[in-house]
Amino acid sequence: MKATPPPATARRTEHDLLGTVDIDATAYYGVHTRRAVENFPITGIPISSHPDLIVALACVKQAATLANAQLGLLDQEKADAIVLACEEIRRGELHTEFVVDVLQGGAGTSTNMNANEVIANRALELLGHRRGDYEVVHPLEHVNLSQSTNDVYPTAVKVALRFTVHRLRTGMLHLADAFATKAEEFAHVLKVGRTQLQDAVPMTLGQEFGTYAVMLGEDAERLLEASALIAEINLGGTAIGTGLNADPAYAELACGHLARITGLPVTTAADLVEATQDVGAFVQLSGVVKRSAVKLSKVCNDLRLLSSGPRTGLAEINLPPVQAGSSIMPGKVNPVVPEVVNQVAFEVVGNDVTISLAAEGGQLQLNAFEPIIAHSLFESIAHLTNACWTLADRCVSGITANTEHLRHLAEHSVGIVTALSPRIGYSAAAEIAAEAVQTGRRVSDVAIERGLLNRAELEELLLPENLVPSLRTPGSRPATAPPVTRRS
Amino acid sequence: MKATPPPATARRTEHDLLGTVDIDATAYYGVHTRRAVENFPITGIPISSHPDLIVALACVKQAATLANAQLGLLDQEKADAIVLACEEIRRGELHTEFVVDVLQGGAGTSTNMNANEVIANRALELLGHRRGDYEVVHPLEHVNLSQSTNDVYPTAVKVALRFTVHRLRTGMLHLADAFATKAEEFAHVLKVGRTQLQDAVPMTLGQEFGTYAVMLGEDAERLLEASALIAEINLGGTAIGTGLNADPAYAELACGHLARITGLPVTTAADLVEATQDVGAFVQLSGVVKRSAVKLSKVCNDLRLLSSGPRTGLAEINLPPVQAGSSIMPGKVNPVVPEVVNQVAFEVVGNDVTISLAAEGGQLQLNAFEPIIAHSLFESIAHLTNACWTLADRCVSGITANTEHLRHLAEHSVGIVTALSPRIGYSAAAEIAAEAVQTGRRVSDVAIERGLLNRAELEELLLPENLVPSLRTPGSRPATAPPVTRRS
Amino acid sequence: MKATPPPATARRTEHDLLGTVDIDATAYYGVHTRRAVENFPITGIPISSHPDLIVALACVKQAATLANAQLGLLDQEKADAIVLACEEIRRGELHTEFVVDVLQGGAGTSTNMNANEVIANRALELLGHRRGDYEVVHPLEHVNLSQSTNDVYPTAVKVALRFTVHRLRTGMLHLADAFATKAEEFAHVLKVGRTQLQDAVPMTLGQEFGTYAVMLGEDAERLLEASALIAEINLGGTAIGTGLNADPAYAELACGHLARITGLPVTTAADLVEATQDVGAFVQLSGVVKRSAVKLSKVCNDLRLLSSGPRTGLAEINLPPVQAGSSIMPGKVNPVVPEVVNQVAFEVVGNDVTISLAAEGGQLQLNAFEPIIAHSLFESIAHLTNACWTLADRCVSGITANTEHLRHLAEHSVGIVTALSPRIGYSAAAEIAAEAVQTGRRVSDVAIERGLLNRAELEELLLPENLVPSLRTPGSRPATAPPVTRRS
Amino acid sequence: MKATPPPATARRTEHDLLGTVDIDATAYYGVHTRRAVENFPITGIPISSHPDLIVALACVKQAATLANAQLGLLDQEKADAIVLACEEIRRGELHTEFVVDVLQGGAGTSTNMNANEVIANRALELLGHRRGDYEVVHPLEHVNLSQSTNDVYPTAVKVALRFTVHRLRTGMLHLADAFATKAEEFAHVLKVGRTQLQDAVPMTLGQEFGTYAVMLGEDAERLLEASALIAEINLGGTAIGTGLNADPAYAELACGHLARITGLPVTTAADLVEATQDVGAFVQLSGVVKRSAVKLSKVCNDLRLLSSGPRTGLAEINLPPVQAGSSIMPGKVNPVVPEVVNQVAFEVVGNDVTISLAAEGGQLQLNAFEPIIAHSLFESIAHLTNACWTLADRCVSGITANTEHLRHLAEHSVGIVTALSPRIGYSAAAEIAAEAVQTGRRVSDVAIERGLLNRAELEELLLPENLVPSLRTPGSRPATAPPVTRRS
Repeated sequence: MKATPPPATARRTEHDLLGTVDIDATAYYGVHTRRAVENFPITGIPISSHPDLIVALACVKQAATLANAQLGLLDQEKADAIVLACEEIRRGELHTEFVVDVLQGGAGTSTNMNANEVIANRALELLGHRRGDYEVVHPLEHVNLSQSTNDVYPTAVKVALRFTVHRLRTGMLHLADAFATKAEEFAHVLKVGRTQLQDAVPMTLGQEFGTYAVMLGEDAERLLEASALIAEINLGGTAIGTGLNADPAYAELACGHLARITGLPVTTAADLVEATQDVGAFVQLSGVVKRSAVKLSKVCNDLRLLSSGPRTGLAEINLPPVQAGSSIMPGKVNPVVPEVVNQVAFEVVGNDVTISLAAEGGQLQLNAFEPIIAHSLFESIAHLTNACWTLADRCVSGITANTEHLRHLAEHSVGIVTALSPRIGYSAAAEIAAEAVQTGRRVSDVAIERGLLNRAELEELLLPENLVPSLRTPGSRPATAPPVTRRS
Repeated sequence: MKATPPPATARRTEHDLLGTVDIDATAYYGVHTRRAVENFPITGIPISSHPDLIVALACVKQAATLANAQLGLLDQEKADAIVLACEEIRRGELHTEFVVDVLQGGAGTSTNMNANEVIANRALELLGHRRGDYEVVHPLEHVNLSQSTNDVYPTAVKVALRFTVHRLRTGMLHLADAFATKAEEFAHVLKVGRTQLQDAVPMTLGQEFGTYAVMLGEDAERLLEASALIAEINLGGTAIGTGLNADPAYAELACGHLARITGLPVTTAADLVEATQDVGAFVQLSGVVKRSAVKLSKVCNDLRLLSSGPRTGLAEINLPPVQAGSSIMPGKVNPVVPEVVNQVAFEVVGNDVTISLAAEGGQLQLNAFEPIIAHSLFESIAHLTNACWTLADRCVSGITANTEHLRHLAEHSVGIVTALSPRIGYSAAAEIAAEAVQTGRRVSDVAIERGLLNRAELEELLLPENLVPSLRTPGSRPATAPPVTRRS
Repeated sequence: MKATPPPATARRTEHDLLGTVDIDATAYYGVHTRRAVENFPITGIPISSHPDLIVALACVKQAATLANAQLGLLDQEKADAIVLACEEIRRGELHTEFVVDVLQGGAGTSTNMNANEVIANRALELLGHRRGDYEVVHPLEHVNLSQSTNDVYPTAVKVALRFTVHRLRTGMLHLADAFATKAEEFAHVLKVGRTQLQDAVPMTLGQEFGTYAVMLGEDAERLLEASALIAEINLGGTAIGTGLNADPAYAELACGHLARITGLPVTTAADLVEATQDVGAFVQLSGVVKRSAVKLSKVCNDLRLLSSGPRTGLAEINLPPVQAGSSIMPGKVNPVVPEVVNQVAFEVVGNDVTISLAAEGGQLQLNAFEPIIAHSLFESIAHLTNACWTLADRCVSGITANTEHLRHLAEHSVGIVTALSPRIGYSAAAEIAAEAVQTGRRVSDVAIERGLLNRAELEELLLPENLVPSLRTPGSRPATAPPVTRRS
Repeated sequence: MKATPPPATARRTEHDLLGTVDIDATAYYGVHTRRAVENFPITGIPISSHPDLIVALACVKQAATLANAQLGLLDQEKADAIVLACEEIRRGELHTEFVVDVLQGGAGTSTNMNANEVIANRALELLGHRRGDYEVVHPLEHVNLSQSTNDVYPTAVKVALRFTVHRLRTGMLHLADAFATKAEEFAHVLKVGRTQLQDAVPMTLGQEFGTYAVMLGEDAERLLEASALIAEINLGGTAIGTGLNADPAYAELACGHLARITGLPVTTAADLVEATQDVGAFVQLSGVVKRSAVKLSKVCNDLRLLSSGPRTGLAEINLPPVQAGSSIMPGKVNPVVPEVVNQVAFEVVGNDVTISLAAEGGQLQLNAFEPIIAHSLFESIAHLTNACWTLADRCVSGITANTEHLRHLAEHSVGIVTALSPRIGYSAAAEIAAEAVQTGRRVSDVAIERGLLNRAELEELLLPENLVPSLRTPGSRPATAPPVTRRS
């Protein structure tokens, strides 16, 4: 079925409204792609660096083609060839032909044109024709039939984001599991809790790690909700949402095919004019991803703080060493994995601002800045996904606790005076605390000396299981239970 | 029941762990508040500038007191006085006594202390005692009983945010209604849609305004979802979420009272240690408010663009004049209301970044930076609420359309060539468009001259109701229907 | 010279292009201000909350009036009255009459109108006329003569910013002094330096504090440079910079008067069209203020970290207690002053984003969003100024060091193995470090045991003054010298 | 001089404190690089994507080696080989061996290690030894001698930034020239200026374009100033700035060599402890780059607005078509080049936030997050440089003006009434304007009808050269003169 490939040195001529352009005959892309490559020499990063987007574009083109064929707008032979080409791309083939820059003017037109041309030329080849023989299969009149960049591109971005968000959630839940496992392991490790970096009241290290598991589980829920919003698509709205040049039945048909092809619950937006210009769902998703990033950064700050030392820091936990830490200080080991996660988080916060500006800049019936929105989201989500796996597998899973040290600090901390407050009053307790800090003595010794409580009462009050209720009822610890049981 | 007020010149002495302080005897606040006022001379804006927060604090204190009384921890007479004091504050009294700065160190401790002191002194007064007579009603041992700033403050902030979000949604829905009304009014006004500021294909002005109504309706839904997250509170977790010094039954009792008092569906978080340190719900809410702001800014950009002129702009619509626009250019009228809304949106985006930084900065068992998170959210939401009402009432409701001008442009636009493309092909249509632009002639004239279509076919193709399907089926226009019918 | 004040209940009628408005006869402002108050009910904060702006407006109006009189455009009696009114405002009088909201549409028009009206009515009063008698002194035709909001407002904002930046620099240098004083005090306190929160090599606490002094001194220099940029004004450009309706000699004359009145080196921009629309100098200033904020936040993070404890933290330094830290934990003292400075820094970073958006939103010959730019800058600078003074006087100046604890940690740290590396090689040193960490032994003991060095060599190598060169040459420590000697 | 290359399948074994690792024998990098590649699978983008950084690292290593040899710390043969290896890298060789991820934990340690290993192995090869034969040339003991990541990495980043900023300035000045050329060309094209998108007073299109040239010229100046700050380096400070393990003479010697090698005016910071931890110069540079981006975005917004149409927009200018604008709307041409520049600007603003967070996150003696700071800056600057060239060459240089249309609008605009205000008063002029707008008549006709001026007076007042003073004195137009003549 394949045509003889053209000789490597051959070139073909294509033309557009600006004139003609010579294209390397081996290229599947055509004149519009070439113009775009010349017009946007910005980042040097091609859109193929976001493979989910390429796959999603092929899904959308396939769905549109099936709908067109069903409506009798496209003859079956052409439709079959286009569908075959799309399926190849969905399998990962031809991605190197998607060469336009991730940053591009034109609301994704060049990305759509790139897809149209690659699919048309591959379809031509499958039909035994030469590339560029657009009389037979035309990038715009056949592959793009009933479509506009303005409905295809955002739809493809949304489909791709669903793919990536799924991976991010999987990574977050994997990390949550790693923390939950540690929470179990450390369920009985007594330690001092801290507020505002000052010694507060006792807790367990298991509670501390369980917290991180719960946080991540909640974030994964929020991602699921934000992800639901991007299932609403505007395919069929064409140029500005009025559906001009699309058959009235097309939108629902194409949406149905897309749902089947992708396995995603995509639905057609109720108001396509609104859906075509509105990028709110992207802003929302970015906000939720940012939320996760900010919290993950906080967790990494904690890990770095708790593992500070080895001798002059808090030294409560030990992160597994993964590389030599210094080119000058022998033996130094640094918390490099949490540090890289922090940096990813900073990048995500910045990207969220970028997305806000791009969203604000939309005008009238379209947001011309969707490419930077898409690129920023793909980047944030991919980096954060990698960060979760790296943190889980190269750091959290190997953390150990300095149990004795932690218990010692807990027993000698001043914060336990809080437990005396209901018995002796806030002011008396505050005076004991002050004396304990100044003299370096234990709270219980000061309290006894002052005759406020006898030793038996004190020992009862300051029993770890009275200070940390969860130690009494290990079965009821919510924090150490895995926050999620199913991987979606 | 009231004690004789102290003479204006009298002072009373209070003390804390740092020593004694003279307090104006007429003040309801005490030593901790005074210290805080001296320590945080930052913005000059007292927390009373967020009255919802003051009311919410009183709600929380009242709920805690009722639970304490129920558990037999507080005698009924004291409890009754505290509750009465709280109810006064909820009615708007005593707010001027909440004097600590909106920006303060200490995770809200000073705000909580301020509330404890005002309530204690007012309760003392109600019981016939002098202010400062803390043996009888103590700010910490009675008003703050079973509580910590670390559970009271975030709970109060969440309750207050529920109040403010409700008002924001009401404002947004009011604005959505204003747009929906205009969408009805302009349902048959034909115009040219624009993408990337270039003439695209026809639509109606009603669709354009309907879009804004739909957007706002969707945003209001998102706010409702984000608002649900802040109904989960950590009251009863005390210092770090372990519930130290609180009766095991306290959390649920207090939460129940709070739900009843506020009418809000507040629930106790499953993991109080997590809930005490996590500010994710605030970050999420801010992200959603930012989403609304960004979109509202886009809408205002559109309004300013569509009303540009009067002679050299688009001049499609007229905003009602609300003030003289220039101190030097007589007769100039500017779109000042959309402009102020833009500025509010910029502020909200900035505040979201502030909140992200504050959230990222949390450490271990607490986020010490909750005051700036709360202040930023209160500010964003209040300003955005005001912006919605102002935009609706001082701008949108008075907008008129230049109907004839719009129709003329639509009929002479080049973008209608798109409708010919399915019949004559993209390339032929592109050539017609190019000639029409260059010569200034009408698309239909060029098409006829080229012999591609006859006049009858053209007239059929270019009928407004064929170009804008919604003109055919007025009953099915989703955009012009009010997006919401009920004001929650 | 004063007219009889009108009875409190009297009202006067003013009119503008929209019709007539009743004004409280005691008000100095007029119809344009009233419209604006109604149009912008956004923040509730009047522009008088930025008194520097009010004073600066009066300076600009005075300068313009003097130039107008000099050019014979304004008769001397009127000019004298206007100048007198301006001088009163510069002295702090009449500020409560500046009532328009800090957030307003219209590029500052309402602020300018407010100034024009207050000055005109006060001038009228000084001339023995009734307020509102604009035939004699007209807000626009006399007070605003040769002016436009578009040159007056940015000029006034720049003058006001010069005032505020001066105060910020003073605050920063005061704080730098506080750090420098501590650097001197701690010049010989040996401690372990940390990189990535892990023990690194020895240094002095004096070097640590000296660093903060140097940082602040550098920031103050950067502020001076950014401040220089805002000395370039566009007064005389009128509406769009073409100088329409202004005498060709006016710009230079007015600028000269303004320089004399304010004592500032203001100069007229070379290209007034550019200067009228460009807000780059504000963006630059905000960027520099943000730089200071970010660094100050880092410094406060350090202070909170170094003072963490009292028992389970680093406990290297003690911050002076300034208030009780907890409503539940007796005796707890928190680093509330650094915490509030952190929050101011977060606000400044957010404001910088707001300013970026507002700057990006400028269109063609004007940026309509200057009010939010001005408000955000005034807020950032004022809060940061207050933060500097508070941090210096309520925290830094009272810091004490735990000298013995610090020296003990330094002598037992593992990082000193670095000093052996040049002698025994990186790999051998790394092995010693690893053994020391694992066994808890001292580096020197392990090194001797391994026969790599004898005790004398070791003692020489590990002498504090060999590890910390600055201990050898106290006179040459740049860090502890006050970074600045003169207060500008 | 070259050793026989190892067979492709061979592997060599290297070890570090964690154990041994098998390395592909053809690799120039070693064990530390391999660990880092495994530890940081985040972006997939290697540091070689920033070639300036690789070159700068080689410059720094060469300078350090020359200083070490001079001080007798390194024998001449080794030093020569190291220098030769560095020179190869500076010429662009071996860059593919720099494989660690741009996002990495550890303050740049992995980047420094990567450089040390590549240089050591290449030096070994040049000396006729096998790669991995570190007894002869050791990555840490010889290539990294007297150095720490903490002084090498920031120094290299600064050197690299100087290179990139130079290119950005060249691009900006090229763009400024393109605008200046257009300003000359359009010096006599009369048009209406607009404020707040409303018709204001007349100006020339040359003034409009001249403004952009001036803006860019000013931005280039600001970049030069910010660039000066990054010439201050901390080479010689080693681990934390105390200079441990470096000869007292080393810092100045190395700095001198670096200045000679790079041709840059690098100087050693006065306080190396401060310079090691402070990233203020990066924040400042980012702020200035952001300023340029924000302003460039505003310029692109203007270009898109002025070229809106072709029939229903402002249609004042025409951007050269560079590609077909739509996949559905034939003949549509969009402003894709300004659009991509807008998106780059949004990215830069986001990156600035990322950098602010990273800077704020520094702790104690080091900022561990320098890699994301460096990456963000390199990205922002490179993309903005490309954006400037693209905008100049693919858009601005081909812009044409619709001169007749512009003049017609100017002559019929209402804003010219401003010129009558000084003669007839603001109120009378406002009434004329209102009538003109309502009736669609010309200002002059209304004025004459009202008997306020006779036709001769009016014609004199409304002469273009009286409305736009620059038309009178073409020689004095600052805006159209090229803002810079020399390319630095």
